Amino acid sequence: MRKLLVIGIGAGSPEYVTVQAIDALNRARVFFVFDKGEAKSDLVALRQEICERFIENDDYRFVSIDDPMRDPQPHGYKRGVEAWHRARAEKLVERIVSEVADGECGAFLVWGDPSLYDSTLRLIDLVREERRFAFEIEVIPGISSVQALAARHGLILNTIGGSVMVTTGRELAERGWPEAADSIVVMLDRGDGLRAAAREDVEIYWGALLGTPRERLVSGKLTDVIDEIERIRAQEKAASGWIMDIYLLRRSRPD
Amino acid sequence: MRKLLVIGIGAGSPEYVTVQAIDALNRARVFFVFDKGEAKSDLVALRQEICERFIENDDYRFVSIDDPMRDPQPHGYKRGVEAWHRARAEKLVERIVSEVADGECGAFLVWGDPSLYDSTLRLIDLVREERRFAFEIEVIPGISSVQALAARHGLILNTIGGSVMVTTGRELAERGWPEAADSIVVMLDRGDGLRAAAREDVEIYWGALLGTPRERLVSGKLTDVIDEIERIRAQEKAASGWIMDIYLLRRSRPD
Repeated sequence: MRKLLVIGIGAGSPEYVTVQAIDALNRARVFFVFDKGEAKSDLVALRQEICERFIENDDYRFVSIDDPMRDPQPHGYKRGVEAWHRARAEKLVERIVSEVADGECGAFLVWGDPSLYDSTLRLIDLVREERRFAFEIEVIPGISSVQALAARHGLILNTIGGSVMVTTGRELAERGWPEAADSIVVMLDRGDGLRAAAREDVEIYWGALLGTPRERLVSGKLTDVIDEIERIRAQEKAASGWIMDIYLLRRSRPD
Repeated sequence: MRKLLVIGIGAGSPEYVTVQAIDALNRARVFFVFDKGEAKSDLVALRQEICERFIENDDYRFVSIDDPMRDPQPHGYKRGVEAWHRARAEKLVERIVSEVADGECGAFLVWGDPSLYDSTLRLIDLVREERRFAFEIEVIPGISSVQALAARHGLILNTIGGSVMVTTGRELAERGWPEAADSIVVMLDRGDGLRAAAREDVEIYWGALLGTPRERLVSGKLTDVIDEIERIRAQEKAASGWIMDIYLLRRSRPD
């Protein structure tokens, strides 16, 4: 039987890699990588650095898979995302069968943690549905950007006894502030979540490129710091073509 | 200046410790521990195992601090919790000043991640407010039980584009299912959250003692498996006096 490892390698810094992930990296022979073009080539370099640092021999290889569709709305309409995943699953089945021998280990490296806004596990469910071969799956958790954000700001995400909502910029912009939470972590925001929230009287703890040498942190009253955050976002995006950021919003809740 | 490290050591398994945490463990000379009595002595043993495995020399010591008040309602009324934290902070200031020399590192080991339902950082904020001495603080994130749960079940916490609420059993029982989320992670439930949710048509992914040799996992339709979960909870609690469990609930959301 083939084995597929889904390895959370943490949010940006090789220091976030766990003992369990190091063990898993050393068991895999083939690392599958979706080719997203040149835009995020510093992420590719960082992934290779992690492998070189933690894998003890050089008996492994990367297998690049063309991204069948550069998802135009990665966190948008459900149906578009499902079709995109299915196209990736079909390509992936072919490559797994040809690249990973029976009894061998293939692996996917996931930035942050595989359980939060990452499609690798959904993709593997689709591969399973294709029923072309049997495989075992093992998931290794990693330090997510949510945790890196909290650690760098010295934050507890929840207020005493309170709830924490983890959501996307789109959801926040479309649905407004959720009734049930006084603390909201926003991921994958293209900017509309931030602008929608700026109508509220809230504190923000923001971070970009967490764990990397280019890490940026800003905190304060959202209406005071939103211009600074938007300026940094624009600068970093202009410099490298992309930006990954995340933030916690908090508003006081009447007792 | 003194330095205080708040080190997330992951949820139960030494395998969850990160490279950054190993480095931090090796920098600390004094580990502060709140004595909660004998009930959770297997947790104390596991913490010592982590130190012995990852700290390279034996030039460190544990300093036990009596818990000033065995918090009768740890996640209950805000005011009670704040008084409890303040009593702990006062004791802690005395011990830090006497145990950690200027220029040395003291550390707190936190199960899981310091950013989620853990009071260590709140306590350190209170120590800072006492203004008796200056110190630097560094937070090291750890694999939380939320992530361990997701990994062991092979789960993505969010549905495509959906939000995830992280809450307590008490909040869920008192406030009901939050409008804005189709996925809810429940921590610190004494049983009332589970029973309240069993009125809904939901799937549950449950785990107890995650990462430890006594780990238990159950999943299925909540109304089908709630009896099994309650039986395991009662058994484990009878065996060792305590149980730590966590679960994801998911209900379908109309498109």
